Amino acid sequence: MQAAWNRPHILELASWQPWELDLVLQTASSFREVLAGRTKKVPALQGQVVTNLFFEPSTRTRSSFELAAKRLSADVMNFTPGSSSLTKGETILDTAKTYLAMGADILVIRHQQAGVPQFIADQMDALEAGVRVLNAGDGQHEHPSQGLLDLFTITSLYDPENPRLATLRGKKIAIVGDILHSRVARSNLWALLAAGVDLHLAAPPTLLPQAFGGLKPTDSPGCLTLHWTLEPALENADLVMTLRLQKERMTAHLLTSLREYHQAFGLTSQRLQGCREGVKILHPGPVNRGVEISSELMDDPRFSLIQDQVTSGVAVRMALLYLIGTYGEEAP
Amino acid sequence: MQAAWNRPHILELASWQPWELDLVLQTASSFREVLAGRTKKVPALQGQVVTNLFFEPSTRTRSSFELAAKRLSADVMNFTPGSSSLTKGETILDTAKTYLAMGADILVIRHQQAGVPQFIADQMDALEAGVRVLNAGDGQHEHPSQGLLDLFTITSLYDPENPRLATLRGKKIAIVGDILHSRVARSNLWALLAAGVDLHLAAPPTLLPQAFGGLKPTDSPGCLTLHWTLEPALENADLVMTLRLQKERMTAHLLTSLREYHQAFGLTSQRLQGCREGVKILHPGPVNRGVEISSELMDDPRFSLIQDQVTSGVAVRMALLYLIGTYGEEAP
Amino acid sequence: MQAAWNRPHILELASWQPWELDLVLQTASSFREVLAGRTKKVPALQGQVVTNLFFEPSTRTRSSFELAAKRLSADVMNFTPGSSSLTKGETILDTAKTYLAMGADILVIRHQQAGVPQFIADQMDALEAGVRVLNAGDGQHEHPSQGLLDLFTITSLYDPENPRLATLRGKKIAIVGDILHSRVARSNLWALLAAGVDLHLAAPPTLLPQAFGGLKPTDSPGCLTLHWTLEPALENADLVMTLRLQKERMTAHLLTSLREYHQAFGLTSQRLQGCREGVKILHPGPVNRGVEISSELMDDPRFSLIQDQVTSGVAVRMALLYLIGTYGEEAP
Repeated sequence: MQAAWNRPHILELASWQPWELDLVLQTASSFREVLAGRTKKVPALQGQVVTNLFFEPSTRTRSSFELAAKRLSADVMNFTPGSSSLTKGETILDTAKTYLAMGADILVIRHQQAGVPQFIADQMDALEAGVRVLNAGDGQHEHPSQGLLDLFTITSLYDPENPRLATLRGKKIAIVGDILHSRVARSNLWALLAAGVDLHLAAPPTLLPQAFGGLKPTDSPGCLTLHWTLEPALENADLVMTLRLQKERMTAHLLTSLREYHQAFGLTSQRLQGCREGVKILHPGPVNRGVEISSELMDDPRFSLIQDQVTSGVAVRMALLYLIGTYGEEAP
Repeated sequence: MQAAWNRPHILELASWQPWELDLVLQTASSFREVLAGRTKKVPALQGQVVTNLFFEPSTRTRSSFELAAKRLSADVMNFTPGSSSLTKGETILDTAKTYLAMGADILVIRHQQAGVPQFIADQMDALEAGVRVLNAGDGQHEHPSQGLLDLFTITSLYDPENPRLATLRGKKIAIVGDILHSRVARSNLWALLAAGVDLHLAAPPTLLPQAFGGLKPTDSPGCLTLHWTLEPALENADLVMTLRLQKERMTAHLLTSLREYHQAFGLTSQRLQGCREGVKILHPGPVNRGVEISSELMDDPRFSLIQDQVTSGVAVRMALLYLIGTYGEEAP
Repeated sequence: MQAAWNRPHILELASWQPWELDLVLQTASSFREVLAGRTKKVPALQGQVVTNLFFEPSTRTRSSFELAAKRLSADVMNFTPGSSSLTKGETILDTAKTYLAMGADILVIRHQQAGVPQFIADQMDALEAGVRVLNAGDGQHEHPSQGLLDLFTITSLYDPENPRLATLRGKKIAIVGDILHSRVARSNLWALLAAGVDLHLAAPPTLLPQAFGGLKPTDSPGCLTLHWTLEPALENADLVMTLRLQKERMTAHLLTSLREYHQAFGLTSQRLQGCREGVKILHPGPVNRGVEISSELMDDPRFSLIQDQVTSGVAVRMALLYLIGTYGEEAP
């Protein structure tokens, strides 16, 4: 009945089918049970080597992948660009090939430039290397594991035992903030539209070009609406996801000031009053307190799902590493 | 007969009872036996995650905790503040909560500011998070694992098989150096006074304010004496602990020069002649050779316990991680 | 029949006997079989601690040692000089002794200064510490694990099942590039001459002093010839090893420009036409594309052994860690 997983790499969510999203949710759900137990480890990837190639540093995301890999009993290698050969004339592909030659089975790649993980995956396939690539964030393109952990967090809200896409159909979800520059927003957009969500984007015009309205795939069951003020996006929303605001945006004259941004688009308890009863807030972290969200709202356990997102991250990344790490093995 | 361990966190030694110190010594002693064996590992913390949050970097102490955790079969995550979210607007508490949400069971925290580990522990308790906090050095407050490894080192001198507080009663121990700024001195002071030691502190007046004389708890069996020259502290001393001198002290006009400091307070073989036969030297490391201690004395195995302190560190940290990591589990 | 391994440390190849080289090749060959299997791990060094003391940073070599150690089931500690005690007045020996005291069984040492690993090994022996030292590159002296992985790579070419020195006798091998400053060239030189290779060195005169001609040991079965142009070295060569060119050499006025260097000594497909049919290229990495070697040649699988060298590195380092890590244990 269930189709079998057939992606050797995880590079984006734009092309994913609903059943693929559901399979990740199910797999993550079973790893959540493992993590709730006493042992917290499974031998699934024993002997495999997961290599974190983080050309753009991120302690938080790297730690999450590292822990997920260790709980699958894989060995982990971390590539640290600071003391690296890149400054010595090697290309990114040379670096990837070096780790491949050492024995890496999965490359988890973060790079400030969109398309690098895809490029490495294509090259590895051309070499018939059998190595798997997982995009841990590439430029302003995608951050699929973040999109999936967000999906896992919110579907678990509606059915904790059996998180699945279907529970999101028709829910109103608002994504607020610097959508233009956000790979997190893009990955969420594809997943949420595939789930049939009534999706609303809200940002200042400089951070949300009109063109985003055309992103909805024609066969998608979801709806996509753009707003350049916050209130209509929040009205009757079931869930609100706010994005990290890079302070560099101001020097690029896309914003006047953080204070004005907060006044116009920052989430506060008061602003949530237009939302549906029981509304929850998501943020991919790290949070600029008092900018995207008020400190008080961020710490309010009635609203904030921020810690749940981090917890979901380990289970979802275990699921992703497991699915690609066992892809292509003979069926039992 | 033996009271049960009842501290979920290890934050300071100021409030410890003698039986607690003895319990750590006993537990460390049994781990020392494990380390002398062939396997060197126990499965005690299998599946648990120990996270080193070292906001103030220290390769030496972090390595010691990391090895202790691995020898208890725990998984280790290292937070490196350089590439961290702290520069991105997160608070320390946000960072701690992120690692908690990922699945950390024990947070080992070093911070340049006194009170941070206590603050995090309080917040974790308020969240009923079940996470344990171990202070790996906070500002000028305390460094309890260092105090305990020093205690383990010297009690092992008097009874290698069965190290215990009672063997220190009435011993004369001198602590020499920058006591004012030393968290190591403070943690040692509480432990040694609780053991009934005749404790002597010696430093230039700028580094040892008169007020330190009042630190002795009224119910403590030890004695506390202050000196502003070295000789009376060393006279008939059984043990001498000298502290690392931060070179920044000179720019703060607390010292004239390192050479003059060495002439007045630096330990040398000759200066030890007033001590008791068999006197031993301790230093928490890293040593400024020729400042706190002459190079020749530091390397003299008849006197120096510096390597023993490092070795004790792993066994003592295993004991501490074990005690808090298994705290609150149902009795067998 | 087979003599037993009798080196507690691996510091250089200059003094090695052919049977020792063969024993490493055999041992690496059996670990290559382990790596080709499903489990990829052996319990040989369980409970042992391998410490990487890389005073000169190198992500690539450190990762290779780290993975080799993990696949032998050892625990790994990494010393990172950036946040280290060296800036705090400690000597290198103090650092080594600290890791010894923590429980390190093997110290893998890289240092910009020749002789540091030997010095540490001598001091450890004087202390009867039982700790093993492996030189991971010291100044312009030696890089024995690189020399051995090159040897393993090329002997595996001639007999993949049973790589051994004898297959290299009489082969013409050229080493091209900055020989003067290269520890890789020196380690290869000793190994290849011991194997009876017809060895040719080629470089600009500033990078290959006449004195290198006198390096051949009198009892060596190999031949050593020097060239100050590329062509005679390549003529009928079976194998060509080119070395990394440090860009600092130009500021030291040893080279005019990288472009002129490439024109005179850079390897290209065209230049290889004078070599023997089936010639292969080695490079210790990381490569300066278009300097030592043309990009197109580097990526040509018909010629390049560069990835094989990296793969060999893990098996050879497992062999070395295994041989010294089990040295001195009672025979079964």
